[in-house]
Amino acid sequence: MKPTLPKGTRDFAPHQVLKREHIFAIIKRVFSSYGYAPIETPAMESLSSLMGKYGEEGDKLLFKVLNNGDFLAKADEGAMKDRNSDKVVTSISKRGLRYDLTVPFARFVAMHRNDLQFPFKRYQIQPVWRADRPQKGRYQEFYQCDADVIGSDALIYESEFIQIFDTVFAELGLEVKIRYNHRQILLGVAQYAGVEDQFVEMTTTLDKLDKIGEQGVLQELDYRGISNDSGVKILELIQETDSAIFEQKVGSTEAGKQGFEEINRVKSYLSHVELKNTLTLDPTLARGLSYYTGTIFEVESTETPMGSIAAGGRYADLTSLFGLPDMSGVGISFGAERIYDVMETLERFPQDVSNTLTALILPMDEESIDTCMHLARKLRDHNVSTDVYPGPAKMKKMMKYANSRAVPHVIIIGEDEIKSGQYMLKRMVTGDQVSLNLQELIESLVG
Amino acid sequence: MKPTLPKGTRDFAPHQVLKREHIFAIIKRVFSSYGYAPIETPAMESLSSLMGKYGEEGDKLLFKVLNNGDFLAKADEGAMKDRNSDKVVTSISKRGLRYDLTVPFARFVAMHRNDLQFPFKRYQIQPVWRADRPQKGRYQEFYQCDADVIGSDALIYESEFIQIFDTVFAELGLEVKIRYNHRQILLGVAQYAGVEDQFVEMTTTLDKLDKIGEQGVLQELDYRGISNDSGVKILELIQETDSAIFEQKVGSTEAGKQGFEEINRVKSYLSHVELKNTLTLDPTLARGLSYYTGTIFEVESTETPMGSIAAGGRYADLTSLFGLPDMSGVGISFGAERIYDVMETLERFPQDVSNTLTALILPMDEESIDTCMHLARKLRDHNVSTDVYPGPAKMKKMMKYANSRAVPHVIIIGEDEIKSGQYMLKRMVTGDQVSLNLQELIESLVG
Repeated sequence: MKPTLPKGTRDFAPHQVLKREHIFAIIKRVFSSYGYAPIETPAMESLSSLMGKYGEEGDKLLFKVLNNGDFLAKADEGAMKDRNSDKVVTSISKRGLRYDLTVPFARFVAMHRNDLQFPFKRYQIQPVWRADRPQKGRYQEFYQCDADVIGSDALIYESEFIQIFDTVFAELGLEVKIRYNHRQILLGVAQYAGVEDQFVEMTTTLDKLDKIGEQGVLQELDYRGISNDSGVKILELIQETDSAIFEQKVGSTEAGKQGFEEINRVKSYLSHVELKNTLTLDPTLARGLSYYTGTIFEVESTETPMGSIAAGGRYADLTSLFGLPDMSGVGISFGAERIYDVMETLERFPQDVSNTLTALILPMDEESIDTCMHLARKLRDHNVSTDVYPGPAKMKKMMKYANSRAVPHVIIIGEDEIKSGQYMLKRMVTGDQVSLNLQELIESLVG
Repeated sequence: MKPTLPKGTRDFAPHQVLKREHIFAIIKRVFSSYGYAPIETPAMESLSSLMGKYGEEGDKLLFKVLNNGDFLAKADEGAMKDRNSDKVVTSISKRGLRYDLTVPFARFVAMHRNDLQFPFKRYQIQPVWRADRPQKGRYQEFYQCDADVIGSDALIYESEFIQIFDTVFAELGLEVKIRYNHRQILLGVAQYAGVEDQFVEMTTTLDKLDKIGEQGVLQELDYRGISNDSGVKILELIQETDSAIFEQKVGSTEAGKQGFEEINRVKSYLSHVELKNTLTLDPTLARGLSYYTGTIFEVESTETPMGSIAAGGRYADLTSLFGLPDMSGVGISFGAERIYDVMETLERFPQDVSNTLTALILPMDEESIDTCMHLARKLRDHNVSTDVYPGPAKMKKMMKYANSRAVPHVIIIGEDEIKSGQYMLKRMVTGDQVSLNLQELIESLVG
């Protein structure tokens, strides 16, 4: 039987797991320092919790788990006769694999509301599954990495998330630009241009400015029923380089005034804080406005083109889907898979992050193995990752294995070494060898 | 919509995640020190990789994932007409959730054989899924925690796993007994009693000695075609309290001789190593003998009855299922869920393991929030988990929140504190308050 994996899934070898854990460890540490606590939810949710939450397309991309046992016994007879797959599904499947961490979080909060203290700050780093067509860089199983605070509309959290973005990427050794915007500022732009009724059309089009340019935006606005005059007014406004003028104009509208009050409050909470990356108000930023109700964020690398590597925003009503209304919150998500790719491209992983072995001990003969095991134990007790070659074998063979494992230190032990209590330590990078007693050897490797 | 979870699945709240991570972190650290490297495999495997690997009962307990799109289009017509669920499955499902970490590991090794250096030492800590009937302490999603070395028949690995058991449980603060046995010793017992042809019947029955007692064993042996004389001989032998006599008798058989040679070699590799827990040869231990070919291990708590909390053994031929024959290996598994229960029962989790917050800062008025955010940032930069109460609010309300979060330190900041640069730190356990400047405050909390 030929070993295979389902399309769109992948294994992670040790060096990949260790690099991924490097990213997760930094994100977790920063989340924790800001008072976010980890939760975990099961891979399988009730299909009824998932269906209808991600649009029609999303429903199709959900992985559904077959009911166990004689699932056909309860299958929808009519749908079976018609061979209607879509209609049969819910009668033979009660569970689905989680599609994101947001809906499970909403379900978690609603379900455990009586055990939680609000505002509730949680982070969650777990895989999600989507039946997307597999392609380069897109997988059917991938990790999401979310933090949310729910149950407060205080703006301190927006300022915290900006700091979290800033700190995480600084600790990863990546330079980013953090862009933000506010739904009410965008609405203010629409009010200023007199197209409030076409708010959605306006924002959807503006979001493409980078891709399709000014002329493209004007054409699309026109197509969507926004006049050329209004289009020009909008473009002039959002491309205003003097931020004071932009604020004055947009702030003259009702929505814009509220938007600027909020983001100025957020900036005030950052007034004593030194950011390492740039933070820019970008009035074209219009992500997730069907969902976000306040500030929105997007983070990109300034060093390599990769698109958004982290994002988020303020929402008003996440948990009402599960019967718990009026819970405002803010949430962000790190795109761990893309961050991994950026780190690889820019070679920012620490050099020793994927070292799986610090020392390899080579026994010269059968009689030396007990001593090898003893020495290995001493090193292991000091958390030095150590292996004993399952020999004895020819020196050439053992050294070949040492090289293939890229181990930085090799220790050779035979009759002479045991008698003298002096062990030979070979540093593989430089090739130099030193003779050390047990204590010196431990000190040299524990370093 | 009422929020629910599928039967047999569960959420983990922060204190549970942190306690689980405490266990995993210790196991990972010990695995790493012995040169084991982490791998991860996808939740979904090809159903063809899983079916037939766990017996007929196992096939039923596999969670099968429905093909996406119009899955009925390729459904087996005959089986559909007959409403034969078992027969339809493979025509509408190509993927299954992994049932354990052993088969995915075998698939991984066979698939990546050209990229791996052998002996290959890997650990893997990931959830698995089984459609078992949910009951107290048994879940449909649970973590397994495995380490294996494959591609060598060297006995140093048996001695390493004994040390790993010993070290992990010592670091967890649990006292255990490590029992071991060897397939060839059991076979030697059968040879000694002249029942070699009924080896399986003998071992299956002996494994129940604890539960059904001597008379029960004799009855069952008789039922399985082993005479009372042989039964008495077997029982006398395996209950021999003088280990020298046991070794002499069993060692007189061909199989027993080989078994003792091996376990004596393993013990020799441990000769310079001091174990913290007891290690006992238990000739009744007969776990997984359809699979294990050499030494077998089982670990139990000596402090509370919980059954096996870790186990493992030597196997000859794990990867031949996937076309890679003759790869001997040894593997062990920690029962993380049971270890968690033992730790809870015996109250061995460190007291601060589930603290999600070290300091909570309370603003006395709106104007103080900027300063609160500044102080919070200073503490967070020192990895002190810190929150700012989204106030201002009544002191009583804020202190109630502080108590509900069980935060050990509260800092109160208002106009006076900002003017004087002296902040009030309240230690919640003792109730005492001290007035500190910024630097003193940081030092006191970074500890």
